[in-house]
Amino acid sequence: MSIQRKHLDKGYTQVYTGNGKGKTTAAIGQAIRAAGNGYRSLIIQFMKEYPYSELIALKQFKEFIEIEQYCGDDFVYKKELPSLEEKEKALKAIKRAEEEFGKYNFDIIILDEIIVSIYFKLINVENIIDVIKKKPANKELILTGRYCPQEIIDLADLVTEMKEVKHYYQKGITSRKGFES
Amino acid sequence: MSIQRKHLDKGYTQVYTGNGKGKTTAAIGQAIRAAGNGYRSLIIQFMKEYPYSELIALKQFKEFIEIEQYCGDDFVYKKELPSLEEKEKALKAIKRAEEEFGKYNFDIIILDEIIVSIYFKLINVENIIDVIKKKPANKELILTGRYCPQEIIDLADLVTEMKEVKHYYQKGITSRKGFES
Repeated sequence: MSIQRKHLDKGYTQVYTGNGKGKTTAAIGQAIRAAGNGYRSLIIQFMKEYPYSELIALKQFKEFIEIEQYCGDDFVYKKELPSLEEKEKALKAIKRAEEEFGKYNFDIIILDEIIVSIYFKLINVENIIDVIKKKPANKELILTGRYCPQEIIDLADLVTEMKEVKHYYQKGITSRKGFES
Repeated sequence: MSIQRKHLDKGYTQVYTGNGKGKTTAAIGQAIRAAGNGYRSLIIQFMKEYPYSELIALKQFKEFIEIEQYCGDDFVYKKELPSLEEKEKALKAIKRAEEEFGKYNFDIIILDEIIVSIYFKLINVENIIDVIKKKPANKELILTGRYCPQEIIDLADLVTEMKEVKHYYQKGITSRKGFES
């Protein structure tokens, strides 16, 4: 790729929340747009252990975008509480993000579905508050997931709510490969 | 790329509207995710004639995603009505989309910022209604842009409103290369 690698001087905290479609895809699109300007992104996915289509596609982009998955979502479907093992994986994902804060590998750290991970009791709101507070000035932090607590909104610089106005779920259409997964 | 090309059987009409950040990036992220499943996307951008960062990045993906730009946005900044020439370019963009409806080149057609083009008097709501009605069953149509008229919401299958909860514009931060453009 002939795009010149650049480093970010000043980064912010972005949140994509709400019950509508487009949170994860907006974060991925943001990483792609940033790549066009030479910024490198690390996408850390929570509760998505099986191979989502974006994981396959983004391999093409490995010079600028890396994607890693931590913890499964089996417990959600089984309507169980997460196991200790799953909780440990989630904390490992957070640690992974923090590890990069002091380095120059990535300009943007995306914690995909981290917010809804609170709702599913995988992590606590304090874990996220802690990451936001630790974010150095030269990193952009992007958090996605529905049910965003007010404390996180207060700390973030940019918050967008993806609001479902109309959904084809209402027509009985479930998750489509390449669209929702 | 080792992704196997697939064709879509049944496509829908998606709309991303609202005053918040994430409409175009959600559409781009959707194209990336779809590429991971073998679907090809054509992104037609309205009112974005200068090289946005996504245009540069997506060149990397040309096997699965093509991006074309039609008409400028000078008139918006100059607070003028669009010239006849600009209006013709916008209609050409719509025609370009319709041209692909009967072919197997693309599964997904993204008309980026087409909705706000009504507001800026580049096109009419009828132009969009017409495209939605012409969409064949095997294509997915994705429309973005703020100020979505109710007639379009009524015709679409999936509508998400990106609602601005908090924006760093309020802190005096304007468009950042790699983030907003």
